[in-house]
Amino acid sequence: MNCIVAQSGGPTAAINATLAGVIKGAFINNFDNVYGSVNGIEGILNDNIVSLNVFKDEKKFALLKQTPSAFLGSCRLKLPEYTENEEIFEKITAFMLEKDIKYFFYIGGNDSMDTVAKLNRYVKAKNIDIKCMGVPKTIDNDLPVTDHTPGFGSAAKYIATTVREITCDSRVYDKDTVTIVEIMGRSAGWLTASSALARRYEGDGPHLIYLPERDFDIEKFLEDLKAVVKKEKNAVVCVSEGIKDKDGTYICEKTSSGLFDTFGHKYLSGTAKALEDLVRERLGFKVRGVELSVCQRCAGHIISLRDIEEAVLIGKSAVEFALMGKSGEMVFYKRVSNNPYKINIESHNIEDIANLEQRVPCNMINNEGNDVTDDMITYLKPLIEGEYPVVYENSLPEIITLREIL
Amino acid sequence: MNCIVAQSGGPTAAINATLAGVIKGAFINNFDNVYGSVNGIEGILNDNIVSLNVFKDEKKFALLKQTPSAFLGSCRLKLPEYTENEEIFEKITAFMLEKDIKYFFYIGGNDSMDTVAKLNRYVKAKNIDIKCMGVPKTIDNDLPVTDHTPGFGSAAKYIATTVREITCDSRVYDKDTVTIVEIMGRSAGWLTASSALARRYEGDGPHLIYLPERDFDIEKFLEDLKAVVKKEKNAVVCVSEGIKDKDGTYICEKTSSGLFDTFGHKYLSGTAKALEDLVRERLGFKVRGVELSVCQRCAGHIISLRDIEEAVLIGKSAVEFALMGKSGEMVFYKRVSNNPYKINIESHNIEDIANLEQRVPCNMINNEGNDVTDDMITYLKPLIEGEYPVVYENSLPEIITLREIL
Repeated sequence: MNCIVAQSGGPTAAINATLAGVIKGAFINNFDNVYGSVNGIEGILNDNIVSLNVFKDEKKFALLKQTPSAFLGSCRLKLPEYTENEEIFEKITAFMLEKDIKYFFYIGGNDSMDTVAKLNRYVKAKNIDIKCMGVPKTIDNDLPVTDHTPGFGSAAKYIATTVREITCDSRVYDKDTVTIVEIMGRSAGWLTASSALARRYEGDGPHLIYLPERDFDIEKFLEDLKAVVKKEKNAVVCVSEGIKDKDGTYICEKTSSGLFDTFGHKYLSGTAKALEDLVRERLGFKVRGVELSVCQRCAGHIISLRDIEEAVLIGKSAVEFALMGKSGEMVFYKRVSNNPYKINIESHNIEDIANLEQRVPCNMINNEGNDVTDDMITYLKPLIEGEYPVVYENSLPEIITLREIL
Repeated sequence: MNCIVAQSGGPTAAINATLAGVIKGAFINNFDNVYGSVNGIEGILNDNIVSLNVFKDEKKFALLKQTPSAFLGSCRLKLPEYTENEEIFEKITAFMLEKDIKYFFYIGGNDSMDTVAKLNRYVKAKNIDIKCMGVPKTIDNDLPVTDHTPGFGSAAKYIATTVREITCDSRVYDKDTVTIVEIMGRSAGWLTASSALARRYEGDGPHLIYLPERDFDIEKFLEDLKAVVKKEKNAVVCVSEGIKDKDGTYICEKTSSGLFDTFGHKYLSGTAKALEDLVRERLGFKVRGVELSVCQRCAGHIISLRDIEEAVLIGKSAVEFALMGKSGEMVFYKRVSNNPYKINIESHNIEDIANLEQRVPCNMINNEGNDVTDDMITYLKPLIEGEYPVVYENSLPEIITLREIL
């Protein structure tokens, strides 16, 4: 009995913990071979697969859990419908059946779940005995059905920590200053919202938080900002990269390079820079834009213990659900209690998830649209809990890379 | 017997550990009062000082050591020569003598040592019984005389860790990519050089490292880069913000805002962005610029144990040297052995240090000017050693701020 696992979409600090979970689940359930497809589904198409049986070695397994980014590489390949192009699906399934692979695990975000859904529709239609399971992953936390996504808690912990540090940094000089921190999130503001956890007292930074779920009003922002600077002197503002004005124009649009990625999302950058220029011109404050950039999705050195433990567990659960006969489903977290925090892992039809987005709901954003509510804090707090005991070598966090197991 | 301490210049993750060291040195030596001047020398001029005796509380003292940025705030005030404006020096010394303060400790970089030198020249000329000691601080590591500066080791550890993570992130897709990481350093390349510690094997990132000590040749860079991409597919390049071409023009100059800070340094930003545009236009690779920005100087969550321990020690030593009668000097680290690593703390005439800069020497940069040498690695390695046991509260690194002791 063999299985194959792959990773897709943007990297996170927990996606390899989920991979470790799938591997562990397969080992426990006596799979003969656990294969990894390199660069997502492309590995199967290009005959680029590796054996992951080496992770029976405990040290390697431990390192995999703490290694950020996608160990097996990733892809952004969007599969066609099998009714449009059957050949590609024939190729995938023929390859798998030849290797006696009956289980396919795909770790990814909403775009990746689309791949699982399409492959599952094909194997069902053709009556091929392959189980296809989706395992969630995304720092963006924007998947429907699941309470949260593996990788989000660690990104949130990094963001809250870094925003607290940037707030310290922002108040050293005795003059009015503005610091604008740009956080990832095209259309969902979960990551930006997590900056609120940085606060230690009333009036602490971040002072203003803008999510893409609300229209961004430039004049209102400048008024909000003036009030904060007047009261606190050093204002820290957190904004999602994807904030737009009421006409749907991205705030960064003037400086954006206008590139598009494969899935048709606009490539965003420069929201902090655009606001920095605006504040300097209009208000004359000393202002600095800081873009957290890729660091927020790959900071393996400060990861949430809960996130990593749950990420391993959900990977393991995916194997168990597949062995129970499930296919075309995604495993997800169901929060059953906040105090004490408790989740169950369940499985749900992937057709309800693929390509859909879970944005921040109204009750978690304040009326003024410039902060989050206590509901958001209650939701976020358990997700960053605990410090994962990262193993260091030569005074730096140790990692493992694909070339080390080849 | 009373003393006063202040912090000046850009914040670091270790400047408060040095403050803690001065406080500890004063407590051990039975000072009645340890005062802190808020916002550097400006606190004395504006009667804005605080008692630091509260740090007899062990918990507060421990938090101070791990809090990044300048606890007492900072300033960039450049004092005149006393021969030009005696009044300001009269004001400073009158304030101190009125409070029975006979010891002045100033924690800062080369600009701050200029303040110590000027104040010391004044008290010497006027025969005033005040001892003035400089205590080094700067992530830039660009002070002469001292082997390295407190704060540098922690910044180097953060940079090496982050560049390792960014390298992981950079290689997930099966396509040619370039990632350009911009690291602080106007004219000294120490911080950028520390990115080399991220490497785990031959061919690992960062693949190219450019320091401001060498002229940056755009055509040579593009050739270097093409070769790396051809061999490794995913290139990671680390550049100092302050790299210039052979005519002395900053690479970022096209995009720089052209602002100047008080000490006449050009305000730099956008070197990664400028190179990103260059690479996209000229080579057509998928390219991303990442600016580590202020995070590299305030990342209190990943600090070098050695840096923090040494930073406390040098603060304590400053008090001891002052009590021995020294004035107008800066305490510094003298490396006496590499294997095992050992330093002594000594004291040196500040006139040899103020306003001067220690750049990276020739033997630490390779002939091609696109990497560092083994001499640099040998120099750097001990400085990032050990993980400081950061105290967490509510799952985030805990800090202490000035308002909490008022």
